[in-house]
Amino acid sequence: MKIAVMGYGTIGSGVVEVLDVNRDVIAKRVGEPLEVKSVLDLREFKGDPIESKIVHDYMDIVNDPEVRIVVETMGGVEPAYTFVKAMLMAGKHVTTSNKALVADKGAELIGIAKEHNVTFLFEASVGGGIPIIRALQESLTGDVVEEIKGIVNGTTNYMMTKMTMEGSEFEDVLKEAQDKGYAEKDPTADIEGYDACRKIAILTSLVCGKQVDYNDIPTEGIHKITATDIKYANAMGRAIKLLATSQAAGDTYYARVAPFLLTPSHPLYHVNDVFNAVYVHGNMLGDGMFYGSGAGKLPTASAVVGDIVEIAKNVDGNIPITWEPSKVTLADPGNQEYEFFVRTTADQATVEAAFGAVSYVDAGIAGEVGFTTSKMAQREYDDKAKQLGDVLQMIRLA
Amino acid sequence: MKIAVMGYGTIGSGVVEVLDVNRDVIAKRVGEPLEVKSVLDLREFKGDPIESKIVHDYMDIVNDPEVRIVVETMGGVEPAYTFVKAMLMAGKHVTTSNKALVADKGAELIGIAKEHNVTFLFEASVGGGIPIIRALQESLTGDVVEEIKGIVNGTTNYMMTKMTMEGSEFEDVLKEAQDKGYAEKDPTADIEGYDACRKIAILTSLVCGKQVDYNDIPTEGIHKITATDIKYANAMGRAIKLLATSQAAGDTYYARVAPFLLTPSHPLYHVNDVFNAVYVHGNMLGDGMFYGSGAGKLPTASAVVGDIVEIAKNVDGNIPITWEPSKVTLADPGNQEYEFFVRTTADQATVEAAFGAVSYVDAGIAGEVGFTTSKMAQREYDDKAKQLGDVLQMIRLA
Repeated sequence: MKIAVMGYGTIGSGVVEVLDVNRDVIAKRVGEPLEVKSVLDLREFKGDPIESKIVHDYMDIVNDPEVRIVVETMGGVEPAYTFVKAMLMAGKHVTTSNKALVADKGAELIGIAKEHNVTFLFEASVGGGIPIIRALQESLTGDVVEEIKGIVNGTTNYMMTKMTMEGSEFEDVLKEAQDKGYAEKDPTADIEGYDACRKIAILTSLVCGKQVDYNDIPTEGIHKITATDIKYANAMGRAIKLLATSQAAGDTYYARVAPFLLTPSHPLYHVNDVFNAVYVHGNMLGDGMFYGSGAGKLPTASAVVGDIVEIAKNVDGNIPITWEPSKVTLADPGNQEYEFFVRTTADQATVEAAFGAVSYVDAGIAGEVGFTTSKMAQREYDDKAKQLGDVLQMIRLA
Repeated sequence: MKIAVMGYGTIGSGVVEVLDVNRDVIAKRVGEPLEVKSVLDLREFKGDPIESKIVHDYMDIVNDPEVRIVVETMGGVEPAYTFVKAMLMAGKHVTTSNKALVADKGAELIGIAKEHNVTFLFEASVGGGIPIIRALQESLTGDVVEEIKGIVNGTTNYMMTKMTMEGSEFEDVLKEAQDKGYAEKDPTADIEGYDACRKIAILTSLVCGKQVDYNDIPTEGIHKITATDIKYANAMGRAIKLLATSQAAGDTYYARVAPFLLTPSHPLYHVNDVFNAVYVHGNMLGDGMFYGSGAGKLPTASAVVGDIVEIAKNVDGNIPITWEPSKVTLADPGNQEYEFFVRTTADQATVEAAFGAVSYVDAGIAGEVGFTTSKMAQREYDDKAKQLGDVLQMIRLA
């Protein structure tokens, strides 16, 4: 069975490597050998073993009747969207690792695949090697998934782990992460939470079977987290993690990306370094968690190849995925309830006038007070916080 | 689509409950409603809503052409084996939560299902609600799974957690677990590791696609673990967990069930109480872990219903599973290498004469020494330990 790969970067070359290293076991699982016939890239790769397979025009793949499965690992919405759509319409199955494409065009591409009796899969678009999408699609099908909390961005989890372990400041840890290749030169998508936001939009879309627009999800990154916040977290016995969350609320969902303060009893508390994990609560299952390498060449490529094998075993038809283009209106985030940790220069009398009884946190920091509130709606917190005047930091508890 | 349930105990009644509570979403996923038509049980359940569906003769189900899917939640090898075989031969799909049946007859029942173009699934037989079997079968298909370490028995994990948290003795914790219903009146299968042994036999069979005989797996339970051992574990900063392990070794596998001493950096260290988790290492994926409720009525029933949905979506054919009846000869457990923690009444000179340089562990226990060895084969350890004379305890590090 012949495969084409679009984009010979980190993930694309990883897919070629996984198919090569595990060639024999994969052939046994599929029932026949899989062969990469062509690789779409703008570059030539002179002298590389892949050189003879390189094509520069995606239409060469569209028009190649031998290619049954196409892997998209280019990233970004365009031109990936144009290329993937053309492949599906030409009757080729597609698997992608591209979260931007899936968050934006997932429902549409699933529909196009179905029309043309082929399959569109995207396990690698969330959580790298962690098989969370197949778990939601094919395992937890007896459950109503009521809540998802994910650590789905390895860069920011590495940074939060470092800040916690070493007490370092954000800028120093960011520089170190960039030096080690864990953070991009332009780290905006990771540290501002945009990457995590697209991933929770995808997971929530799969849970409800409709389109969740990532633009509707309130998203805060980690760039405002300081070494002082870490001291307070330590004083509370908690850890700060960037979580991508969604929670059923009647017929709709709350969704939010933000740093949260976790207790050691939460399974996500122990997820450190570049690891990812997705915590799921089902109405029958109870608590579950899926943990693993959320990024990196081979783990992500492993997830893509898992999709290839599933497609190859069902090469004559469509594997249905319920994700309709009709849009979900998310619940008003102002109504979602949390306990809040707050740092302020206001005095205790002002704090208590605003919030009533609070729990003070002593982290030995002069010139400010830190406290946690009782549970209240986000909107109620926002109103009360205005009475403090100066809020140095707010982090929600989870 | 009509379903029959064999065995209306905890899990069987849970399956009926999950199908009822989540009726609408399940019907949407399958494309039509699922209905429990008959329930096989020796009892009558007078006055119970299920009463009208009770049958006492499994042949009533075999001969009912309306029943397409049969759930087996009776437990034990017989008569479950006879009943399941008859269902498959009558062209009915079967899903089971019965680890004893699957460990013993899995390969044969998979073969019979294939012959009759129906499916035999068993997600709930390992790890309750944790979808580890589907992960191995359908997600990690681009990987060679090189190692599995599982906390797959909730009873013993609850007991080890209690002993660790409270410093209590084994017998006291066992009694408490029995009072709470977490341990059976006859707790042998759990505390001696027989239950975990069957589960790792199933997982290893799925990894290698051949029959692993659970009788071949060296199995130690937790009944020899004492409050003194916990003190040593605390002194080492480790936790004692009953692990079911298997590890690729060339063309075969090492497998073992035993208590192990885990460091906090291992993801299984944090798995407490009745929770289960299965850690997997793939040659491409790297480390992954699946965590959740490993037992209990609804989580286990949720896994059974996940199987029902998968079968219902593929009701006209066989879902292939590679698990052939040909038997794997496991690797010689004497060759497997570990570091060992040892307690002995021998003096340090004797210890060092036997083991050379060791690391002593000071847990403040008079009249004995505790130490950890360097890495060596099990056989080498066994030989050296004889020179100590009196070994109070040996626990492997992981």
